[in-house]
Amino acid sequence: MIFGPLPTKFFLTSGVGEASTELNAFDAALLNAKIGNTNLIKLSSILPPGCIEVEPYELPKGSMVPLAYGEMTHSEPGIQISASVAVGIPMDASAAGLIMECSRIGDAAVCERTTREMVREGMEDIRGLRIREIKSISATLIVKRVGAVFAAVVLCP
Amino acid sequence: MIFGPLPTKFFLTSGVGEASTELNAFDAALLNAKIGNTNLIKLSSILPPGCIEVEPYELPKGSMVPLAYGEMTHSEPGIQISASVAVGIPMDASAAGLIMECSRIGDAAVCERTTREMVREGMEDIRGLRIREIKSISATLIVKRVGAVFAAVVLCP
Amino acid sequence: MIFGPLPTKFFLTSGVGEASTELNAFDAALLNAKIGNTNLIKLSSILPPGCIEVEPYELPKGSMVPLAYGEMTHSEPGIQISASVAVGIPMDASAAGLIMECSRIGDAAVCERTTREMVREGMEDIRGLRIREIKSISATLIVKRVGAVFAAVVLCP
Repeated sequence: MIFGPLPTKFFLTSGVGEASTELNAFDAALLNAKIGNTNLIKLSSILPPGCIEVEPYELPKGSMVPLAYGEMTHSEPGIQISASVAVGIPMDASAAGLIMECSRIGDAAVCERTTREMVREGMEDIRGLRIREIKSISATLIVKRVGAVFAAVVLCP
Repeated sequence: MIFGPLPTKFFLTSGVGEASTELNAFDAALLNAKIGNTNLIKLSSILPPGCIEVEPYELPKGSMVPLAYGEMTHSEPGIQISASVAVGIPMDASAAGLIMECSRIGDAAVCERTTREMVREGMEDIRGLRIREIKSISATLIVKRVGAVFAAVVLCP
Repeated sequence: MIFGPLPTKFFLTSGVGEASTELNAFDAALLNAKIGNTNLIKLSSILPPGCIEVEPYELPKGSMVPLAYGEMTHSEPGIQISASVAVGIPMDASAAGLIMECSRIGDAAVCERTTREMVREGMEDIRGLRIREIKSISATLIVKRVGAVFAAVVLCP
């Protein structure tokens, strides 16, 4: 095994935030998604084989949390921003799943549909895997001041 | 605990570098900050509860070092660039602290003030925490060839 | 030692991919490079002292893999894109090596030469180290649909 335990669980979460700066808005969105007091480590987006979904739970403050996410920040009031993430679970429990993310100006429906189609292409067309299920989550916000949206698949030990 | 020991110590460091390319200048700035022979893993910027400040020390060569940082590189001679990072330590020792970074063309004073205000907003306004202290550090450089500035909060086990 | 075992081995790998979106093309390039079913953690590019080169091997699916890489995606048919990575191994076995990456529109030769020169500058001029050997690898692609190129130095425990 490479550098630490293979994750065995995952959960989906999302959030939105408003603040004075983009970094503060992003931080507020992380808090809204219940992972604002952890240290995120962005991954390139594979669900380890056999990883099972759990309810989101509070991770220890300051812990290092591997995850895949989509996010967007914007400072123009009135603009709608959206972020989505989707994860494909393969039929074959020994295969890895795939996580894809998207963010855009506009509503969440297009964004979430895009991530689901990206997962489908990556698993069926590119890997030749059959998909058991695709799960997805989005966040959307009409910016008031400086806004952020965030959607993630969090991997847990 | 998630993926490795929770950091228990931290230190602030900063550096500047000049070279032929932006990546070499960044590398030179890391060396100047005394962490140029380690593998940086960029985090989303939480100080674990009870983490104490230590003097910067030499980390093992090649080790993977979690940190939060601001940086900027520029290739136009005569331009001044600055990077800052600030970390807020809460009154409540069981709460997490917050790290914010900033980089900009111009002097370091504005940059450092901005990071401190971002920490204040994130801790007081967004988390409702009382702050015991905000620590900050900056790097600034008037570019000669290709330059880089770097300011970090490094987390240690 | 900081946050996990110091890597003791490394290998070079590269790949190209085509798909409908940039993220899918990048994923396809990772698969082509034989690391598409792992979770990449991008590092700031130091080869730990004494790390030895091994043949590329299949890493456990879903595992977290530290590496340094160059990559590029492009959606304009007919455009040639290239990515390269180079790693310098020092004469002194107690010194760290340096990894540099590059990506560009155009052929791989310029890109790979650039990474090798960046390694030379970082080791000889900036660190004052003598180099035993520089190893490098590239990927190049003339885009058909949406294409990606990827070249990496993967660190292993």
